[in-house]
Amino acid sequence: MSAHFADRLIAAIRDKGAPACVGIDPIYERLPADIAEQRELNDGTDSGSALDAVLEYCRRVIAIVAPLVPAVKINSAFFERFYWEGVEGYYSLVQEAAAAGLVVIGDVKRGDIGHTSGFYAQAHLGDPRFADLDDWVAPDAVTINAYFGLDGVKPFLEVVRQHDQDKGIFALVQTSNESATEIQGLTLDDGMKVSERVAMLVNRWATDEGLIGSSGYSCLGAVVSPRDEASTSKLRGLMPNSIFLVPGFGAQGKTADQVRNCFKPDGSGALVTASRSVLYAYDDMKYLEMYTSEWEKCVEHSCRDFVAALKAVVPQ
Amino acid sequence: MSAHFADRLIAAIRDKGAPACVGIDPIYERLPADIAEQRELNDGTDSGSALDAVLEYCRRVIAIVAPLVPAVKINSAFFERFYWEGVEGYYSLVQEAAAAGLVVIGDVKRGDIGHTSGFYAQAHLGDPRFADLDDWVAPDAVTINAYFGLDGVKPFLEVVRQHDQDKGIFALVQTSNESATEIQGLTLDDGMKVSERVAMLVNRWATDEGLIGSSGYSCLGAVVSPRDEASTSKLRGLMPNSIFLVPGFGAQGKTADQVRNCFKPDGSGALVTASRSVLYAYDDMKYLEMYTSEWEKCVEHSCRDFVAALKAVVPQ
Repeated sequence: MSAHFADRLIAAIRDKGAPACVGIDPIYERLPADIAEQRELNDGTDSGSALDAVLEYCRRVIAIVAPLVPAVKINSAFFERFYWEGVEGYYSLVQEAAAAGLVVIGDVKRGDIGHTSGFYAQAHLGDPRFADLDDWVAPDAVTINAYFGLDGVKPFLEVVRQHDQDKGIFALVQTSNESATEIQGLTLDDGMKVSERVAMLVNRWATDEGLIGSSGYSCLGAVVSPRDEASTSKLRGLMPNSIFLVPGFGAQGKTADQVRNCFKPDGSGALVTASRSVLYAYDDMKYLEMYTSEWEKCVEHSCRDFVAALKAVVPQ
Repeated sequence: MSAHFADRLIAAIRDKGAPACVGIDPIYERLPADIAEQRELNDGTDSGSALDAVLEYCRRVIAIVAPLVPAVKINSAFFERFYWEGVEGYYSLVQEAAAAGLVVIGDVKRGDIGHTSGFYAQAHLGDPRFADLDDWVAPDAVTINAYFGLDGVKPFLEVVRQHDQDKGIFALVQTSNESATEIQGLTLDDGMKVSERVAMLVNRWATDEGLIGSSGYSCLGAVVSPRDEASTSKLRGLMPNSIFLVPGFGAQGKTADQVRNCFKPDGSGALVTASRSVLYAYDDMKYLEMYTSEWEKCVEHSCRDFVAALKAVVPQ
């Protein structure tokens, strides 16, 4: 069932009716009470029981959102916190989400030079080549840090090619945090911003032979968190063949107007992520008042609201 | 035995007589024949036996180099390749190296925004807070990617402060790969290079209250791979309070002249890493002819040569 990653993602978006991605960023201390029986984690609890609760929660969230959205983004940091057992849990959720028919993005933000980056690419994007993990799959795509230039990106592109373009990459171009401007927002001698020049590099790499699918999009996308409308439109223009992975809708406070320019006029070209607003919907009075202690209904309702809000944003 | 990280590292360098760090970048396919009994890894072998061989090899290398050098740098990518069992192996080698009296640097190059970066900092730099891992230690320091600006660095600095400055960080400023210039080498509107501006940011963060020890160096250092003498001297001047972690001596081909300018005139300020030239010394005819099949002697001899070559470089 190998198919070009971007084509596959776009088909999944069409099937579900919205370019919506739920971010799986689980924090033990915020889990619903019926999942986290005890909350003594920071006082020296066994890491295993905390992790079990986190994984149980994530499995149930994945089951809730799978019929509603085309993709999930699983953030490795929230699992690495539980050391190797957390990493095993991360990979188990990748299987879970893939089995539920979701496009799975591993938010790992890895990057290194040459052959070291190659091992990261093998670990996080290539399907396992070990007999004992033969029935496992890696995420469909991962996020990477391109500060190293092409050398750091190339090994990931090689894995994409080894998998007949069935895999994807999202390179960090512009992030959503306040201090992102300290480096990404610097102005170069030709008047461009660093993030814009990174966008040009991404576009050059993305349009390399064989990487663009029949949808017109490449296996190499970009993480773009919109700042203002003008800069977003500029980045959109600089990377016409890249799908934008757009964080920050919901809890991080990006508005519809900010997100809109990540799309092309035909409504394609972006996948928008909401994490905390869905994951912790039961902490939101709006949903809590509706359902009292039924956290699963809160999560489902907020996910539906996210999809509806996004549909209103996407150009028709 | 809590002591300021930079002071501790400098004392360890003085004890061993050279600012030398061995990089632990193990590749199963290159292990000595008596360690890797079978080499069928890529044909679908069980990952466990390959990992066992890798870990056995690393343990023996750590035992060989521990009397000769003050520090080791363990690169996470080479272990993540073996999934969660590899990650467990990575942490077990951290314990092994710490128990051997070495300063341990986790080369993880992590980075994300705000609270996500906080979980990476907990996972990779903070000592475990779980009862079942109570006797474990995290690495003394980690490498991080600062493309996010201060937001991504701050959580690591917070962990440093939580550990009474007993922990350190090395932020990527200039890497050793060819295409590093594509982003790091761009020229800004004020004539500075991006890497130089990152260096200024690192210096600002490094000199924040309480981070500088009695040695004059901060818990926040920088990964600087020298390109030419002038640019290295410039970076050295921009970060007077940061220890440079300098990759590329040996197999990556950095020469003595290139490395020299990473040090201050008093011979302090840098820790130089050699990885493949030590780790695979038995692939080098020079050592192989000396010892035929005794790989341990090859590794020891090349490590001694590395230390001697470095001593000749460090300003007296």
